[in-house]
Amino acid sequence: MMRRPHVAFPVHHSMLITCVAYQNGRKLADIPTEDISEYVSRQDCFVWVALFEPTPEELDEMAEEFGLHELAVDDARHGHQRPKIEEYGDSLFAVLHTVEHATTPAGDEELLSGEIDVFVGRNYVLSVRHRTQSGFAAVRARAEREPELLQHGSGFVFYALMDNIVDRYFPILDGMETELEEIEEQIFVRNTARSNIEALYALKQKLMVLKHAVDPLMEATGRLYGGRVPQICAGMGEYFRDVYDHLHRIHLAIEGIRDMLTTAIQVNLGMISLGESEVTKKLAAWAAIIAVPTMVAGIYGMNFKNMPELDWAWGYPAAVAVMVLVDVWLYFNFKKVKWL
Amino acid sequence: MMRRPHVAFPVHHSMLITCVAYQNGRKLADIPTEDISEYVSRQDCFVWVALFEPTPEELDEMAEEFGLHELAVDDARHGHQRPKIEEYGDSLFAVLHTVEHATTPAGDEELLSGEIDVFVGRNYVLSVRHRTQSGFAAVRARAEREPELLQHGSGFVFYALMDNIVDRYFPILDGMETELEEIEEQIFVRNTARSNIEALYALKQKLMVLKHAVDPLMEATGRLYGGRVPQICAGMGEYFRDVYDHLHRIHLAIEGIRDMLTTAIQVNLGMISLGESEVTKKLAAWAAIIAVPTMVAGIYGMNFKNMPELDWAWGYPAAVAVMVLVDVWLYFNFKKVKWL
Amino acid sequence: MMRRPHVAFPVHHSMLITCVAYQNGRKLADIPTEDISEYVSRQDCFVWVALFEPTPEELDEMAEEFGLHELAVDDARHGHQRPKIEEYGDSLFAVLHTVEHATTPAGDEELLSGEIDVFVGRNYVLSVRHRTQSGFAAVRARAEREPELLQHGSGFVFYALMDNIVDRYFPILDGMETELEEIEEQIFVRNTARSNIEALYALKQKLMVLKHAVDPLMEATGRLYGGRVPQICAGMGEYFRDVYDHLHRIHLAIEGIRDMLTTAIQVNLGMISLGESEVTKKLAAWAAIIAVPTMVAGIYGMNFKNMPELDWAWGYPAAVAVMVLVDVWLYFNFKKVKWL
Amino acid sequence: MMRRPHVAFPVHHSMLITCVAYQNGRKLADIPTEDISEYVSRQDCFVWVALFEPTPEELDEMAEEFGLHELAVDDARHGHQRPKIEEYGDSLFAVLHTVEHATTPAGDEELLSGEIDVFVGRNYVLSVRHRTQSGFAAVRARAEREPELLQHGSGFVFYALMDNIVDRYFPILDGMETELEEIEEQIFVRNTARSNIEALYALKQKLMVLKHAVDPLMEATGRLYGGRVPQICAGMGEYFRDVYDHLHRIHLAIEGIRDMLTTAIQVNLGMISLGESEVTKKLAAWAAIIAVPTMVAGIYGMNFKNMPELDWAWGYPAAVAVMVLVDVWLYFNFKKVKWL
Amino acid sequence: MMRRPHVAFPVHHSMLITCVAYQNGRKLADIPTEDISEYVSRQDCFVWVALFEPTPEELDEMAEEFGLHELAVDDARHGHQRPKIEEYGDSLFAVLHTVEHATTPAGDEELLSGEIDVFVGRNYVLSVRHRTQSGFAAVRARAEREPELLQHGSGFVFYALMDNIVDRYFPILDGMETELEEIEEQIFVRNTARSNIEALYALKQKLMVLKHAVDPLMEATGRLYGGRVPQICAGMGEYFRDVYDHLHRIHLAIEGIRDMLTTAIQVNLGMISLGESEVTKKLAAWAAIIAVPTMVAGIYGMNFKNMPELDWAWGYPAAVAVMVLVDVWLYFNFKKVKWL
Repeated sequence: MMRRPHVAFPVHHSMLITCVAYQNGRKLADIPTEDISEYVSRQDCFVWVALFEPTPEELDEMAEEFGLHELAVDDARHGHQRPKIEEYGDSLFAVLHTVEHATTPAGDEELLSGEIDVFVGRNYVLSVRHRTQSGFAAVRARAEREPELLQHGSGFVFYALMDNIVDRYFPILDGMETELEEIEEQIFVRNTARSNIEALYALKQKLMVLKHAVDPLMEATGRLYGGRVPQICAGMGEYFRDVYDHLHRIHLAIEGIRDMLTTAIQVNLGMISLGESEVTKKLAAWAAIIAVPTMVAGIYGMNFKNMPELDWAWGYPAAVAVMVLVDVWLYFNFKKVKWL
Repeated sequence: MMRRPHVAFPVHHSMLITCVAYQNGRKLADIPTEDISEYVSRQDCFVWVALFEPTPEELDEMAEEFGLHELAVDDARHGHQRPKIEEYGDSLFAVLHTVEHATTPAGDEELLSGEIDVFVGRNYVLSVRHRTQSGFAAVRARAEREPELLQHGSGFVFYALMDNIVDRYFPILDGMETELEEIEEQIFVRNTARSNIEALYALKQKLMVLKHAVDPLMEATGRLYGGRVPQICAGMGEYFRDVYDHLHRIHLAIEGIRDMLTTAIQVNLGMISLGESEVTKKLAAWAAIIAVPTMVAGIYGMNFKNMPELDWAWGYPAAVAVMVLVDVWLYFNFKKVKWL
Repeated sequence: MMRRPHVAFPVHHSMLITCVAYQNGRKLADIPTEDISEYVSRQDCFVWVALFEPTPEELDEMAEEFGLHELAVDDARHGHQRPKIEEYGDSLFAVLHTVEHATTPAGDEELLSGEIDVFVGRNYVLSVRHRTQSGFAAVRARAEREPELLQHGSGFVFYALMDNIVDRYFPILDGMETELEEIEEQIFVRNTARSNIEALYALKQKLMVLKHAVDPLMEATGRLYGGRVPQICAGMGEYFRDVYDHLHRIHLAIEGIRDMLTTAIQVNLGMISLGESEVTKKLAAWAAIIAVPTMVAGIYGMNFKNMPELDWAWGYPAAVAVMVLVDVWLYFNFKKVKWL
Repeated sequence: MMRRPHVAFPVHHSMLITCVAYQNGRKLADIPTEDISEYVSRQDCFVWVALFEPTPEELDEMAEEFGLHELAVDDARHGHQRPKIEEYGDSLFAVLHTVEHATTPAGDEELLSGEIDVFVGRNYVLSVRHRTQSGFAAVRARAEREPELLQHGSGFVFYALMDNIVDRYFPILDGMETELEEIEEQIFVRNTARSNIEALYALKQKLMVLKHAVDPLMEATGRLYGGRVPQICAGMGEYFRDVYDHLHRIHLAIEGIRDMLTTAIQVNLGMISLGESEVTKKLAAWAAIIAVPTMVAGIYGMNFKNMPELDWAWGYPAAVAVMVLVDVWLYFNFKKVKWL
Repeated sequence: MMRRPHVAFPVHHSMLITCVAYQNGRKLADIPTEDISEYVSRQDCFVWVALFEPTPEELDEMAEEFGLHELAVDDARHGHQRPKIEEYGDSLFAVLHTVEHATTPAGDEELLSGEIDVFVGRNYVLSVRHRTQSGFAAVRARAEREPELLQHGSGFVFYALMDNIVDRYFPILDGMETELEEIEEQIFVRNTARSNIEALYALKQKLMVLKHAVDPLMEATGRLYGGRVPQICAGMGEYFRDVYDHLHRIHLAIEGIRDMLTTAIQVNLGMISLGESEVTKKLAAWAAIIAVPTMVAGIYGMNFKNMPELDWAWGYPAAVAVMVLVDVWLYFNFKKVKWL
């Protein structure tokens, strides 16, 4: 389920980030959006456009320039799609989720899910970024440094974007594994049950955010290599298998954490019961230690005329001694059976 | 499992809502039911009929006019089918569930499940609505505004109906996510366990209603695109995939909520145990604070002749001082170990 | 797992119920068992025999008349099979479970599982009924009233028998849903935990009986339509799909109840813990209310010579007033924090 | 997981049980092992050898006589394989588990898992028995009484061995169902929680032993009929389907018991909590009944000069009467709310 | 999830262990790395290189000599892959996990996961060992002793490496089964709940490490026999099936332990509750035994003028006798109902 962000998110509408034409793996020029269709119509050329939270009008313009399918554009306009990769004729429409740490106004840490929509055609790539801070400048820079790979065209750009987004999941996952280990170290320490249970639940919430980003994407990526693959991805099977493999690794790690979380919650419940049991034992032991002298005192507080002990010179010290001795005996016995 | 509605539902039998003939994506005319078979026999024409809780006779008339299969008509007559899409020769029979909020006489909110049965042939669409308030006037209006889509014929109308019903699930789902978040905010607050547990169970009940509407439909919709598809849906694969995609998104969200619900119930159980444990600690602490002076008082209530303290001028204040000091010491110690 | 019946079951061995020959969908005659092979050898004729708990000899006679496979006859002889549909060459052997309410000698209600074995060949149907009261007279009567369907031959009779048995599951299922709703209404009411837990377990037991009747049959029925189907069922795909659909509906409802049962058991456990927690709070509150005056009384029961309060005229009423005031204050405070 | 036997197991190494040659379904002769290869080379003849815990040398001799695959012989030598059926060229290698009741030195009952390795070629069957008491003399006797079946050759012997081993699972399963029913009868009886929980765990342990014998074998058997089957099993599909069917029945029963066990463990946990809750209520009630008179007595034990009641002639009986009345009232109130 | 090792691990970088050329199953010579490409280019020769934690440069050199795929080399460089077997053209890249016992600085035992990366081509095998102590000298020695197997070439070496690694899992698994049995023996013993719960959790952690090593590898190995297999493994199907079979056996054992662990944790929780319940009963019983004499003493401590018992000569002994008798009666009653 998608967590709605509790934090205000600074929105800078209409930030058209870049629009570049490439030929033979090399950058031709930054081009204005009006010229896109011209470059797209050239055989040996492809255009790579990156938008950040575009207005509906900007998206409509792109849809026209690239000839995008109405349903895909609808999805990109509304956002909040599940991760998926869909074929529309010869082109692909992919939705990927980014996952980022954020801090709520209350100071709690939470995971925010952003969305990247990617339209890939034979000679264009259009990425639309929603609710996520970090862009793809690094991807573009790396791609431009490796013209021999970039000349694979739009399919390679698509791979590079996916690879970049998937790589961003690893530190998130590592953070969760660390968090789990920290909780595991706490879980058998007394009087930590409340904080453990809260930490376990918070971790489960975060895990679900990551799981909802990873699992559907893994499933979709599995169809980009082996067997029949979309034309755009042809010949790059090993690259997409590599992305799949990373996703599968994250998937396995998530399932592992999930399984341990379930066990940890049960174990924590056991520790709570155990803790209560120990309190009850302590209560019982001290109650006995206090109740016995009280009973003895009560007996010698009775007003019977004929109570010979009361007249003894050593009656009082003897009574107190009995109380003390019984209590000492009780104390060590309770110690022995671990009630105290 | 289908929740039987606890609320009385106003039934207006025999409300034939509309019966319209279309040609080339444009409305020809509202037609009387007797003329249906005439219009259906025309090549380039299709008829779209919408019924609300029809009498058996009305349904029989439709079955005859459209040549519907006996088993499908039986299903529509009895209602209470699971969501499904079945092929009968060249025609389709679909059962969809609507899910609506309702209020029980006791003032509780619950989800009611209604049913839409749709018969789709090459040139007719017949929708039969059971136990649901909102009709499809909006679908018809939108379709009539877009003749270029409506001229796809009955397949498009079928898509438009499905899309409309599936879109109605989203606010229900959003409501559940909000509800879960509200419970999550409450779950670690003390003394909310009873209301949380009731809210969690109620949410689970509602979730199951939605799940039973969505899951079988998703499975059935998956067979309307890719591979071999029914003739009526041919060429509209991307539209039905879009419906499938929405259903899959809801499905994933439901599974996510379900998983969190299970964890939340366990966590809540932990909080209950923790709460009890804290009460036991408090009980133990206060018991000790009261028991110690009682014991001391008991000792000085003994009737021994020879108890020198009793004769001291400062005996009484000293005894009370001892009681108070011990209690103050106990109090701060219990504070320190968090029992108080 | 199959519940062994605790109730004595009246067994009337050797009740050969009926043996009828049909031609073109119409009854020819009641025939003696010796003539079966004669009628079976006619091209356009089929024989429908119904046995109730036959002796091994009767079964052997039938095996010979119809040429049944040894392994199938073995299964029918021993009973206690799981539901299944098996092909033996051109003929089918089906095992179906009936589920009926029964009352144990102890007065508890339970579900009994009976068994119907059906042998179907090109021109015969043999049903063998075990441990179930209600027969198939109604199926036969309905079939004979509809000769246009009955002339489909043995495949139709097979469908009619399955349909009848499956329809009998619905009231059982409805009963379970009602039972679950009754438990759900009780589950948050105080002091019902014991009866709820017993009811939940009993419901689970019944549910498992139904599940074991339905699930394997659903799986088997799924192979009677679409793709390659047994010759006998050819051309009746829509009918068997209808049976499958009913079974699938029951299956989904069972899974739904099962899921809710698991949750309900957990919730009930939570309510038990909550109940105990509330008892502990009450105990603690009343203990305090009683202990404080006891402590005060203890103090003024001390025998110090020099206790000025003891000599005051208003000492006693003042002490009692202090006790009462402290207790009133405690009482309202405990009320406020909901411990009382 | 395979339970290591805790009981000493009498091992009689080198017991070559039987080695018989058959022709046309009839026994030719008991033959010495040296002659095996001679008989195996005849077209119309097959050899059936049964070993019990053979020495490595004996196994090597067999491997040579029959030309067994090294890996299969390795498996048979080491034992402790999971149940499986593997093809080595034209021959089959099957591992089956037997499950037998045994008694530990401590007097507890447990299930021991033995192993039968079967090598089947066109004209030989070699069975190797490990850690199991009962052999296959009965299978051989029955097969020899039915020459018309035995002339199917080694495939039939293989079926007969499997059928025999699978049939031995049923009494084990029945025993478990009886055990579960006995626990279910105890589960709602007070003060049985400890023995129930032990019985449930022990039953689960036994169930797992059976499950590990049955599930992999069921899966493997499913490949012996329908579709492509090993040459040796050709034409015997209905027989192997029958074995599969038995295994599937046991599998379903195991899953049913497992499901009920999980529920029973949870329910038992609920009963434990409920029991504790009842103890706490009793404790609270009796504490009140004792504390109230103690408090009253404390008050009249105060040493105030001016306590008019103390001087009343009926003061003492009145005080005792108040104590008794309050306690009687408390007692009936606690009875009413079921705390006593 | 991969446990990060808590123990320092001695790293000896750049330990090139061995580099040997083979021909016809016999060792030709230890060769320097520079000559690798020369030997690899010969038709009838293959080279087997084993590296331990190589530097990036060494790996790059190997990549060049053998012509390894960049993505595979990347994986080997970074380590921390999930187990997998991937085809790159005609060559294979396999990642296997080793699992070894280790001791944390705190003295706890834990499982460490190491990694073996294997590159297999038509005439080379390159193994890269990370974070694991034991190498493959034994594998090499055994292979060189069996030239008839070794002449199968690189495929056989690949099998021998896998077989060796998988065989190392068995003692780990056996250790876990022993551990589970030890816990099971403790689980119904009183006052062991805390150590049991810790042991159960630690066992679960170890189990997950093994599961993450075994499950993905099993899945991958299943594609090395039957159906289409990589060229390198052709003709060795039975060997890889044997490896698969071992992995499947471990997998089943892991699932069995996991299932029992879940049950054991629940059962342990039940034992904790039961233990607490018993403490509460003991507390209640002793509280009663002490409270009754205290109450009686309180009554005779009242200061009423007119209390005839106080003047009786035998009043005091009688009161004490009543106290003792009531307590003896209580004691035996509590014994009878097992509260004491």
